[in-house]
Amino acid sequence: MSKLTVLFLPMGLSVEVEKGLSILEAAQKGGVYITNLCGGEGVCGECKVFLKAGQVEGIDRSLELLGDKEVSKGYLLACQSIPTTDVVVEIPLEATVEAAQIMKDQAEEAREAITPTDKPIVEKIFLKLPPPTPEDNIADTERITRELRKTLGWRGYKMDLPCLQRLPQIVRDSNWQVTCTLLREFEEFRILCIEHNDTSKNNLGLAVDVGTTTVVAQLLDLPNNKVIDVEGKLNSQASYGEDVISRIIFACSKGSTEILQKTIVKDINELIEILCERNHIKPEDIWSIVAAGNTTMSHLLLGIYPCAIRLDPYVPTAYSFPIVKAKEVGININPLAPLIVMPCVASYVGGDIVAGVLACGIHEKEGVSALIDIGTNGEIVLGNRDWLVCCSASAGPAFEGGGITCGMRATKGAIEKVRIQNGNVIYSTVGNARPRGICGSGLIDAIYELVRARIIGQDGKFERGLSDPRLGYDSDIPQYTLVYPEESETGKPIVITETDIDSLIKSKGAVFAAIKCLVEYVGLSFEFIENLYVAGGFGNYLDANKAIGIGLLPDIARERIKYVGNTSLKGARLCLTNHSAFERSLNLSRAMTNIELSTYQPFMNEYIASLFLPHTEMKLFPSVSYWS
Amino acid sequence: MSKLTVLFLPMGLSVEVEKGLSILEAAQKGGVYITNLCGGEGVCGECKVFLKAGQVEGIDRSLELLGDKEVSKGYLLACQSIPTTDVVVEIPLEATVEAAQIMKDQAEEAREAITPTDKPIVEKIFLKLPPPTPEDNIADTERITRELRKTLGWRGYKMDLPCLQRLPQIVRDSNWQVTCTLLREFEEFRILCIEHNDTSKNNLGLAVDVGTTTVVAQLLDLPNNKVIDVEGKLNSQASYGEDVISRIIFACSKGSTEILQKTIVKDINELIEILCERNHIKPEDIWSIVAAGNTTMSHLLLGIYPCAIRLDPYVPTAYSFPIVKAKEVGININPLAPLIVMPCVASYVGGDIVAGVLACGIHEKEGVSALIDIGTNGEIVLGNRDWLVCCSASAGPAFEGGGITCGMRATKGAIEKVRIQNGNVIYSTVGNARPRGICGSGLIDAIYELVRARIIGQDGKFERGLSDPRLGYDSDIPQYTLVYPEESETGKPIVITETDIDSLIKSKGAVFAAIKCLVEYVGLSFEFIENLYVAGGFGNYLDANKAIGIGLLPDIARERIKYVGNTSLKGARLCLTNHSAFERSLNLSRAMTNIELSTYQPFMNEYIASLFLPHTEMKLFPSVSYWS
Repeated sequence: MSKLTVLFLPMGLSVEVEKGLSILEAAQKGGVYITNLCGGEGVCGECKVFLKAGQVEGIDRSLELLGDKEVSKGYLLACQSIPTTDVVVEIPLEATVEAAQIMKDQAEEAREAITPTDKPIVEKIFLKLPPPTPEDNIADTERITRELRKTLGWRGYKMDLPCLQRLPQIVRDSNWQVTCTLLREFEEFRILCIEHNDTSKNNLGLAVDVGTTTVVAQLLDLPNNKVIDVEGKLNSQASYGEDVISRIIFACSKGSTEILQKTIVKDINELIEILCERNHIKPEDIWSIVAAGNTTMSHLLLGIYPCAIRLDPYVPTAYSFPIVKAKEVGININPLAPLIVMPCVASYVGGDIVAGVLACGIHEKEGVSALIDIGTNGEIVLGNRDWLVCCSASAGPAFEGGGITCGMRATKGAIEKVRIQNGNVIYSTVGNARPRGICGSGLIDAIYELVRARIIGQDGKFERGLSDPRLGYDSDIPQYTLVYPEESETGKPIVITETDIDSLIKSKGAVFAAIKCLVEYVGLSFEFIENLYVAGGFGNYLDANKAIGIGLLPDIARERIKYVGNTSLKGARLCLTNHSAFERSLNLSRAMTNIELSTYQPFMNEYIASLFLPHTEMKLFPSVSYWS
Repeated sequence: MSKLTVLFLPMGLSVEVEKGLSILEAAQKGGVYITNLCGGEGVCGECKVFLKAGQVEGIDRSLELLGDKEVSKGYLLACQSIPTTDVVVEIPLEATVEAAQIMKDQAEEAREAITPTDKPIVEKIFLKLPPPTPEDNIADTERITRELRKTLGWRGYKMDLPCLQRLPQIVRDSNWQVTCTLLREFEEFRILCIEHNDTSKNNLGLAVDVGTTTVVAQLLDLPNNKVIDVEGKLNSQASYGEDVISRIIFACSKGSTEILQKTIVKDINELIEILCERNHIKPEDIWSIVAAGNTTMSHLLLGIYPCAIRLDPYVPTAYSFPIVKAKEVGININPLAPLIVMPCVASYVGGDIVAGVLACGIHEKEGVSALIDIGTNGEIVLGNRDWLVCCSASAGPAFEGGGITCGMRATKGAIEKVRIQNGNVIYSTVGNARPRGICGSGLIDAIYELVRARIIGQDGKFERGLSDPRLGYDSDIPQYTLVYPEESETGKPIVITETDIDSLIKSKGAVFAAIKCLVEYVGLSFEFIENLYVAGGFGNYLDANKAIGIGLLPDIARERIKYVGNTSLKGARLCLTNHSAFERSLNLSRAMTNIELSTYQPFMNEYIASLFLPHTEMKLFPSVSYWS
């Protein structure tokens, strides 16, 4: 088949592809990221690129989604455009994603001290064995387990064959002084390796948060209870689909589960390489990895076909996963080291949430706590040491900047805080860069401020007849200009449209309705929530007053609201450093009652009642008054 | 490096080798079997070959072991002779080994009915699963285990990752009608595979007796409780050393454990291929394999370094072995099928003996039984349902024809029965072929007859001054001609020398002394033995009267002596067809008390007292009278 070249700007990366592939497929092949929400189905309109040179086929769909005007300027949908000649394609600034500042912040936060109360899930123990004598000539394995039992109490032990094969040489060559690497699998311990002499101090562990958008890995020195370093990157699976649903569609429609598995494994391996190089560490010294992710990410990491997750009645393949060698899935750490994947609760309440419950200690407290993790899905857990209920509400992509005219993720140049005063807009951006767009927390701020400034009403509609110069229309839709073109990085205005506001109201309405349903399901009301943990990168930038003000969070005492950061990573780390935490996670995942909102009658009414700022029932928000 | 050709006669096989290799190494490379007991160390003198053409180096050791006369005729030690030109080598008839008749006999015997009282260790179960509904949307794995628990009761289940990865497609494509393949690992069940539709009838199992000399495999149709077929072959490891000790030396001195593992795996794969072809079966339908062998064979099969077994204080690497995928060690059955290796008791009491105890049901009987397995080592177990003691006596190779002037294994042409009457020798051979040598049972018969005919005394020495024409000398050692040259296959006489008789007396003395030590260790005497099980191919040809007559077996009522054939194979089969048998074998292997005879004080006295025909203490053998 003949080949064509696609040159991507501004990065200047040239990709050679077979004729017949779309620009998006060329980008995926070359590792170039182009935003897209629908996995290349031609329905989201997010993969807009600018054709600088060359010819393409298939512009009908571009015309339909982008309009004549845009297409005539040279804009096209990358997923629908098939080059017929060599082409030069420019990816608009707002559609590229930089290594996120947010992860750097997480990194700093994650350097906190760890104080395990227990042994790590993989432990290395130095043993001085008595050599065999005619009176004591038990098998080598028995000599080792006898010694281990002196320290660890009576246990069943299993030894992997590769370890057994070399065992007699190793114990004799090292004069019966060996280091035993143990995986604690509940009551039974698995001996992964016997090494010469004392290597018990070389025991590193890796906690990984496998997010749909970002992957964060934290390297731990287990014998010294120290976080060595942390590194994050965007999940490269994004080039096959922005969100969970589009990834599942890709994995299934093209039988490409293995591609997505290899992609996430490659990301994890890149993080491992960076962490090892930066800290002068050999990957072979990493003896355990615990990964937490939502149910789909967990399935994909292990190469498990995820298709039934998105089909009614939303069935995952498994809740808990076998402990396999990390090497089996292609992760480059010690070839004998296990990969432990946190268990899930349901199709849309995953191991990241179980990790979050562990990290916040919700399951240990007498009082009732709630955990809210807001992204494309809002996952909510409510409970205490006796019971736990959870649910997942489809919030849509608005909180992550998706489907919003000038929306973007909380990366460099994203407006994260907004204040409107006397017709002026004061804002701050991630990294203090020139503004490129607006992220979720900025949007919440902006909408709150727009109501407070009486520019929009509590129904989210612009007040008609105002003479604010920032107000205008685009295709008959009212919009408010936050940033004029000359101030912005892209040279285009940053606006909020009535449609954007509507999207956000729907998103916050879904999350709030879900919280309310859970609270009422267990017969309580909001004031019983002693701790409201807000998890995720999003939480770090959230202004509680404004989040309550728009009706995203319930109106409870502000000091009860705690931003807890990446609890998925923290929970995974807890399982690395405390073996009993992983056992507890398996019990938790079984004990959590999942409420399936799509079939839960009261949800729809609660949702409709929530489509107001903050809510149709104002008495639910006694402290909220926009004009006091 | 330059190459040479070694042509082996009578088979006419030509092997090309690098200069510098010995004739024995060339034979090993070409798969030509030459008897050798020392693993090529140049000490046993068994690998005698005839150089028909060409030149070799290194005849000093040949001169030393074979003498000037033999070497001048052209005889050489294969292991010490290094060709310097192309050579033609003839292997003497008595040093080649044919596929043994003995195994055909075992085959017939092994076709007995099997009546399992339990489920097989790997079971295939057809499941009709209810499809998921909104009210019943548990994970696919939970749906399967819920259904399994209905039949099997409450259990812990684990599912292997390869099975999990394809699970959601399989259950949906097959309309929720699937076959589940389960390995019963004690209380926990491991799900090995989920297949489309009902394949529960395609469940074959393979029982394998991994003997030092022969390997026998039996194919079973588990759902129908039927033995399909059986096949045996010589253990090809023999070309690296005749007995256990020389194999260990080879495995260690040259770091060649992997070579021996590959060799035995190749043998097993050849048996599988033959069994599958002959019965029109796909190897993928074999879902389990249970192997029983002595401790060294078990180590070698799994590629475990066996060296400490032969070093004081005789320490094996492990008593029990992890259940691995048969594929992991290279066995060609279903790639998901497990290999289960029977547990061992000590360095010289292996899984074959544990299998034997299981097969004879010694551990279930109230009365005391003994199991005797006689080969190069005589392994003995004594006990009942409350206790079991065992030991291993180094009997030397005499019972297998080793170290005996005209000794050979019980293969075609071996004299197996002898009667001496009025100066005539009446004998029968294996396969009714022309005699080629004498095997263990023939030797026992012959010696018994020689005493009875007053040709040798009860001390095993030839009576001086007899004028029997069969009596003569070779290098001053008295000998008795059983077969004249003109009657034999080789054209040479078949003789028994005083040295041969001495060897056999030492062998039988060691076995008897061991039995006596065990019986006295538990404070009993011979009459308490209600069943004396004689195992091994050797047992089939043993005349109880004569075995007692020479003092090999204790003098108990003849009907208590039972020839039980290949109990190693039978025990392995029992574990295939009854999962609880394998669990019991693990308990048995731990519960059996091993008496280490080399450090057991009374043994040496008992041994010396046994160096007489039948024994120095005649009152131990009340029924034996040679001249009544």
